[in-house]
Amino acid sequence: MPPAHPFDFDAVTDGDKLHEECGVFGVIGPPDAANFVALGLHALQHRGQEAGGIVAHDPEQGFNSARRFGYVRDNFTKASLMETLPGPVAIGHVRYSTAGKKGAAIRDVQPFFGEFSMGGAAIAHNGNITNADELRRELIDRGSIFQSSSDSECIIHLMARSLQRDIPARMEDALRRVEGAFSIVAMTRTKLIGVRDPLGVRPLVLGQLGDFWVLSSETCALDIIGAKFLREIEPGEMVVITADGVESRRPFRPRPPRFCIFEHVYFSRPDSIIGGRSVYETRRQIGVELAREVPVDADLVCPVPDSGTPAAIGYAHESGIPYGMGIIRNQYMGRTFIEPTEQIRNMGVRLKLNVNRALIEGKRVILVDDSVVRGTTSRKIKDMILDAGAAEVHFRIASPPTAWPCFYGVDTPERSKLLAASMSEDEMRDYLGVDSLRFISLDGLYRAVGEAAGRKPDCPQYCDACFSGEYPVEPRDMIAKGFELKAAQ
Amino acid sequence: MPPAHPFDFDAVTDGDKLHEECGVFGVIGPPDAANFVALGLHALQHRGQEAGGIVAHDPEQGFNSARRFGYVRDNFTKASLMETLPGPVAIGHVRYSTAGKKGAAIRDVQPFFGEFSMGGAAIAHNGNITNADELRRELIDRGSIFQSSSDSECIIHLMARSLQRDIPARMEDALRRVEGAFSIVAMTRTKLIGVRDPLGVRPLVLGQLGDFWVLSSETCALDIIGAKFLREIEPGEMVVITADGVESRRPFRPRPPRFCIFEHVYFSRPDSIIGGRSVYETRRQIGVELAREVPVDADLVCPVPDSGTPAAIGYAHESGIPYGMGIIRNQYMGRTFIEPTEQIRNMGVRLKLNVNRALIEGKRVILVDDSVVRGTTSRKIKDMILDAGAAEVHFRIASPPTAWPCFYGVDTPERSKLLAASMSEDEMRDYLGVDSLRFISLDGLYRAVGEAAGRKPDCPQYCDACFSGEYPVEPRDMIAKGFELKAAQ
Amino acid sequence: MPPAHPFDFDAVTDGDKLHEECGVFGVIGPPDAANFVALGLHALQHRGQEAGGIVAHDPEQGFNSARRFGYVRDNFTKASLMETLPGPVAIGHVRYSTAGKKGAAIRDVQPFFGEFSMGGAAIAHNGNITNADELRRELIDRGSIFQSSSDSECIIHLMARSLQRDIPARMEDALRRVEGAFSIVAMTRTKLIGVRDPLGVRPLVLGQLGDFWVLSSETCALDIIGAKFLREIEPGEMVVITADGVESRRPFRPRPPRFCIFEHVYFSRPDSIIGGRSVYETRRQIGVELAREVPVDADLVCPVPDSGTPAAIGYAHESGIPYGMGIIRNQYMGRTFIEPTEQIRNMGVRLKLNVNRALIEGKRVILVDDSVVRGTTSRKIKDMILDAGAAEVHFRIASPPTAWPCFYGVDTPERSKLLAASMSEDEMRDYLGVDSLRFISLDGLYRAVGEAAGRKPDCPQYCDACFSGEYPVEPRDMIAKGFELKAAQ
Amino acid sequence: MPPAHPFDFDAVTDGDKLHEECGVFGVIGPPDAANFVALGLHALQHRGQEAGGIVAHDPEQGFNSARRFGYVRDNFTKASLMETLPGPVAIGHVRYSTAGKKGAAIRDVQPFFGEFSMGGAAIAHNGNITNADELRRELIDRGSIFQSSSDSECIIHLMARSLQRDIPARMEDALRRVEGAFSIVAMTRTKLIGVRDPLGVRPLVLGQLGDFWVLSSETCALDIIGAKFLREIEPGEMVVITADGVESRRPFRPRPPRFCIFEHVYFSRPDSIIGGRSVYETRRQIGVELAREVPVDADLVCPVPDSGTPAAIGYAHESGIPYGMGIIRNQYMGRTFIEPTEQIRNMGVRLKLNVNRALIEGKRVILVDDSVVRGTTSRKIKDMILDAGAAEVHFRIASPPTAWPCFYGVDTPERSKLLAASMSEDEMRDYLGVDSLRFISLDGLYRAVGEAAGRKPDCPQYCDACFSGEYPVEPRDMIAKGFELKAAQ
Repeated sequence: MPPAHPFDFDAVTDGDKLHEECGVFGVIGPPDAANFVALGLHALQHRGQEAGGIVAHDPEQGFNSARRFGYVRDNFTKASLMETLPGPVAIGHVRYSTAGKKGAAIRDVQPFFGEFSMGGAAIAHNGNITNADELRRELIDRGSIFQSSSDSECIIHLMARSLQRDIPARMEDALRRVEGAFSIVAMTRTKLIGVRDPLGVRPLVLGQLGDFWVLSSETCALDIIGAKFLREIEPGEMVVITADGVESRRPFRPRPPRFCIFEHVYFSRPDSIIGGRSVYETRRQIGVELAREVPVDADLVCPVPDSGTPAAIGYAHESGIPYGMGIIRNQYMGRTFIEPTEQIRNMGVRLKLNVNRALIEGKRVILVDDSVVRGTTSRKIKDMILDAGAAEVHFRIASPPTAWPCFYGVDTPERSKLLAASMSEDEMRDYLGVDSLRFISLDGLYRAVGEAAGRKPDCPQYCDACFSGEYPVEPRDMIAKGFELKAAQ
Repeated sequence: MPPAHPFDFDAVTDGDKLHEECGVFGVIGPPDAANFVALGLHALQHRGQEAGGIVAHDPEQGFNSARRFGYVRDNFTKASLMETLPGPVAIGHVRYSTAGKKGAAIRDVQPFFGEFSMGGAAIAHNGNITNADELRRELIDRGSIFQSSSDSECIIHLMARSLQRDIPARMEDALRRVEGAFSIVAMTRTKLIGVRDPLGVRPLVLGQLGDFWVLSSETCALDIIGAKFLREIEPGEMVVITADGVESRRPFRPRPPRFCIFEHVYFSRPDSIIGGRSVYETRRQIGVELAREVPVDADLVCPVPDSGTPAAIGYAHESGIPYGMGIIRNQYMGRTFIEPTEQIRNMGVRLKLNVNRALIEGKRVILVDDSVVRGTTSRKIKDMILDAGAAEVHFRIASPPTAWPCFYGVDTPERSKLLAASMSEDEMRDYLGVDSLRFISLDGLYRAVGEAAGRKPDCPQYCDACFSGEYPVEPRDMIAKGFELKAAQ
Repeated sequence: MPPAHPFDFDAVTDGDKLHEECGVFGVIGPPDAANFVALGLHALQHRGQEAGGIVAHDPEQGFNSARRFGYVRDNFTKASLMETLPGPVAIGHVRYSTAGKKGAAIRDVQPFFGEFSMGGAAIAHNGNITNADELRRELIDRGSIFQSSSDSECIIHLMARSLQRDIPARMEDALRRVEGAFSIVAMTRTKLIGVRDPLGVRPLVLGQLGDFWVLSSETCALDIIGAKFLREIEPGEMVVITADGVESRRPFRPRPPRFCIFEHVYFSRPDSIIGGRSVYETRRQIGVELAREVPVDADLVCPVPDSGTPAAIGYAHESGIPYGMGIIRNQYMGRTFIEPTEQIRNMGVRLKLNVNRALIEGKRVILVDDSVVRGTTSRKIKDMILDAGAAEVHFRIASPPTAWPCFYGVDTPERSKLLAASMSEDEMRDYLGVDSLRFISLDGLYRAVGEAAGRKPDCPQYCDACFSGEYPVEPRDMIAKGFELKAAQ
Repeated sequence: MPPAHPFDFDAVTDGDKLHEECGVFGVIGPPDAANFVALGLHALQHRGQEAGGIVAHDPEQGFNSARRFGYVRDNFTKASLMETLPGPVAIGHVRYSTAGKKGAAIRDVQPFFGEFSMGGAAIAHNGNITNADELRRELIDRGSIFQSSSDSECIIHLMARSLQRDIPARMEDALRRVEGAFSIVAMTRTKLIGVRDPLGVRPLVLGQLGDFWVLSSETCALDIIGAKFLREIEPGEMVVITADGVESRRPFRPRPPRFCIFEHVYFSRPDSIIGGRSVYETRRQIGVELAREVPVDADLVCPVPDSGTPAAIGYAHESGIPYGMGIIRNQYMGRTFIEPTEQIRNMGVRLKLNVNRALIEGKRVILVDDSVVRGTTSRKIKDMILDAGAAEVHFRIASPPTAWPCFYGVDTPERSKLLAASMSEDEMRDYLGVDSLRFISLDGLYRAVGEAAGRKPDCPQYCDACFSGEYPVEPRDMIAKGFELKAAQ
């Protein structure tokens, strides 16, 4: 069973962050590939904290797998476990999931494994299949037995029913039936396979370590094992890697790519490289843009730790206002106090953050945060800052108002819970009770990620559905459940 | 048994940090005092990560205790455990201990408890008793049975043998026999007691939350429970707190205080207040002093996370050189990979830190760190920075060279392992292989903590033995074991 | 993972017993049906000690399941677990498995669950499918994905592919494809289902507790919950039980029944009723027959605990030789000493059994045991008895020589490991080094179970393949793997 | 913390048995002495199921200890734990404790350890000190700090305060202050020590295994390691065992011995030898005496498993009435179902025992049990037997009425809870609702243990206080708490 109260920022903040739902990693070559996968998943832990899994194949011992709730470092670090995962091919997955979601079960933890007539295969999927409900119904009607509640399991059943003779070909068959966002790392007894959907919504990169090949959601996980970053898997590309090298295929009809712009804003680690750009530098540049677009006279630029830090550094630099750590984070958080007394429960965000009162007192403070989702945390932080004696509080947000849910592998509250879905910027300011609240513009954000001319309205360079409501892939299952698209304008 | 490989910074860095050995916390008043203690200890976790303990007293259920290896948040958060610790008086302790120390055992975890003829008492001790070996021998000769290998257990046995009729008076008796550094939080069935040694080497503060009273190593632990910081317990003061209020006693002969200056540099949390000064602001000011004392022409000021950050902010501000996060810390560290393969073990510091290559490349980088102990970590970080393509690397250290071990409650390597014990600043620079290495001066450090005129050589305002070799209390047990004091000059 | 060294008799005796592989139990009616199933499985623990599982259905919370390695009493006794299994329909399974079998995994633990288009179903299977390999290959070719290495999983996949509109009908479809031995307890959201194969090789009984209905492998598990024993499910019968009562179906072509005679000898609990006969009484009667068929002059009749006890009582009564406990069993066994030193490992059977030296010394001892499989334990026990000073040792065995493996749900060594496969009775006597060794005759055994005229050679009333080599269902998968049937005579 | 509901017979039977409170074992010689101790404690598990502890000494690693709740086989079987207990001298202890006793804590688990000026010592104590409260008060007044609530801890503190120069001499000093029953196994760095109190109330035996020496509560624990039984330690004797052999001392004033007669009836294992007699044979002989003293016409002699079995065999043999297993015990008991629903809780004794209905039905049944304490279990068993259709139920009890509590190391209910304290034999028969109820006479019991002339009233050969109320050592602490001795007659 999952931890009762997973506690990273969300537990004290009522889920007031968007969350990447998965990270994937795979290695072919080293005799103990699973150890490398464990390290890679550790570096990708920010993409999924709830659970992790590894599948490895050894010529003598066949396929072995281990799936666990909790952090990679707490599970996949025990020699007794890692010894059960020998062999030169291994893939892994980390996963996030809403704490309260009914039925969270170890059988939902990837990678998923299937035995076919030509041998076994395992897949790890980052993203979300937008026609999964439909596919699931069809597969069950035809006699497939599902083991999990995960949308990703459809892929392995589609592969099982393909008439193709080899596994990569079955995977192509299967993925052509699938809609939505997918960056997949898969394996057979002898092959490591990577695929990105035609839009390339979620990231996937290729690395090399001596004779070994690596696939990873982000480059920061190449760094941890000392692998060299070669290139991104391209949108719509499938790579099939064996001892003989990397073969590239193009199973899908080409389309203009729509990478997720929120990976730049928040999801990816600042030390990763995306689209040839340092994530840290992009975020710092967002701060610079923010300082230009919505300046304000103040005494201190203070990040909301830790995600607001690079933008705050950029804002301070551009504005000339001193940068300071007005909020200190307790580095020993992780899991919250379980079933505390009422009195202690009310202490809330203090468990994780403390105000640096001596720095804040009497000052006009600019708080730089990455996003506003429900606004609940922003209010608590504002209260702490004012309690500590700040003269003014100005929020500057490193992304446009988040007004639409994501259906491509990000955990978002339903639309009605998003503050920006029903309030204007001024209404939000009043709701939060701050002296000012300003967001970067969508064009400003595009400039910060390197699109000097801003967003092309007729053909946006990124998926920005969470800000714009323009969904590059129709969220078919959600529409069937009653979700209403933005009215055409 | 203790965790096999405790992993905060040390495990990847060969123990290359000094470590505060303990934090103490106590509450009197609330019906579930132990819950408040758990929160306080969580906020003091940086003072001791290996183990923690809580003792509570309830009029009906008497004394109960729980002692556990591991983080406070992983143990003292379970309702099933906390329910066993009812009552309105409780104290707690967190403890650090060198990983490999033989015989680390749960019986060494404080608080210690003793049943006397007038009732029970528990004590939690931060500091170190410099004549503990001598006292222990004497007590064993007279029939005392020790349960732990801890120096602190002497205090409870001395109390047991006192002829005084009440527990605070027995505690005065006992502490007059004790030499060294001690900040103690103790309790009886109805009293919460706090004491600081005459020099006041380690911190201890008094707080108030409505009708409840709180004692804590640092003010940051008052903040977490919403308590008001009233004042520091004074050097040589004992406070005895009951439902009727706080009584102050002076059991010792007065001496000029010698607070530990390293609490300002590294041990205390930046959001704590010490001696009326914000620790964050003091560290930022150290950076300012550093920039004035040992400037260097460069492109980027980069902190070694996380302890170097405030000084780096100060250095950047004073020097005008841009501040940037050139090193990114994996926030999911905690415990290391246990028994990894050789290949993975060599990946070392990458498990915890990653270089932000895009920011570093081609730049002349100033790295600001809090201290240099063995120098092993500094070398690894330098390697990472150069591998990432830095043009120059300049270390600026926020404390003077650490050349002497501490015997007052800080875990220090033996003198021969301290880089500064045998090398000059230039030799250290060559050993580390950096372009320059400069430390703040002892006078500069005194200025940064508010002593505008610097250190008074004949009567230093702080204990700075780790820098100066001038020990305010003779380390008697250590001398008996062969330690040689600095030759008189 | 499974316990490293499961230790009931086998671990000290080199697997020198045949083992029933499963017990099944199901209840419909009570709001906490799973609690009743836990009790029932506890009473059936002798049919499978390695692992257990329960599936329950609640109208609001749907299907829930829990599967665990270890004893029922150690897992399915925790309120925290049982609370996750609410609802008025539940089934369960206990399972035995050879300790060293590669890949023993929690996913092999039954009940198995499948979601069909008309809703979910779970099945628990006692027995063995003799054409499982063939079915599995066929199902994988057609796109089914297997989650376990169990033969029983075929049934749920065959059900998933049936075109029938309701689950009992799909189950009939599936079971008509299946060969071998099966006593199955299954459930849907509203139904409890029981089936026995046409030969009725393994037992299954129907009970009633007030308004509730119960299915169980043995009657002893009805007793534990206070349910009334109604009748056996008949060979070839399927019962479908709902709130409205019990419906009986006959899905298979009728055949003469062949119930497993070894259930009488060893597998079933002595307090169960089989075929209208008390198992205890049958075993006592076997002892009586033994005393008549193969008498010997001696001073003491001593059971090999615990399974030889009833036959020893019968032997003593019939022969007039005193009955005594010459071998004492340590009641605190359960799991063995893991990874002991070599010296201790050699102490072997002493961990579990001790000779009552004072009783044995100087006596001519008749040891009554239920069976001889490999003979390894019999030799050790003989050594112990002789070491204790017995004058003579005579083995009397309550079953005929076990010369053939069972393929119908019993764990047997391969034929070459069975002592009786290659040795005559005299050779076995010499191998064991005892004064005499005699087995009951096959006709004697038939008389003891109530067949006054003995075994009908042309149409045996029971399955006695382990003694006779006459297999009532062709072991097709095993023949494909090279097993040779007894030559026709 | 202890298991919530320890479950051997007591949990279903409301504590309706007397319980030996401890078993002790020690070895000197083998390099892994602790492994031998673990085996010995496993064989003594019937003397204490709640917890166990082992202390070992290794010349290089010094003293190490491990104390655990639960069975020996579940704790002291793990290589990872046993590796922490190296060295050629080791002692161990198993302990029983009433489930609900407040404050059951690991610190109460023996052996106890003390560091003295001449080195450390550990002791394991079977028995009870009748002046422990008094000694404890005196020791606390003089400055000793107790770590446990155990009476046995007094001994180690008395040793710490002795002025003697070596540990055996300090032990003599200490034990001369102690009143009550004690069989002690102790160790220093180089010595194994055994002592029995002057009355020899509890057993202690000496064994030899090659060059190694062994001390054990019972001979059955010598058998498990293959050691030879040499002799009993005599009442009032102390043996000090080193590499050079066994030295015998006599520290106490000689008194006529008073061994506990209940060890013969119930506490000891049937395969142990006490006072030169087989316990099994003694119990069988009790059955013979019972059949002579209180015969009854019936169809079946049936033991209450497992402790009534030998007496039932003797009764059946002497009376000529057939012996049969009318009650079958579930061999997989151990721990009970925790927090079951009300309905299931009421199933009570069925969890552990089941009636062999087919054997019982219509018969006049003699039930042979070892003792009647509260009578609660006897009533339940009678109900089960009658429900199964028995024609008559006759209880025959293998000990006289238990009318007085034991204060010498046996867990007994307070006197008011003992059925025989307030009822005559006829009243008990009516209370239990059986056709007849008869106990063996005290003289009959003495005859069965070999005293042909019965009990000598002026100088009883055994301690039989639980039957007679004649306490050989004044229970001083209990009298201080209000216990009233039997009025002199």
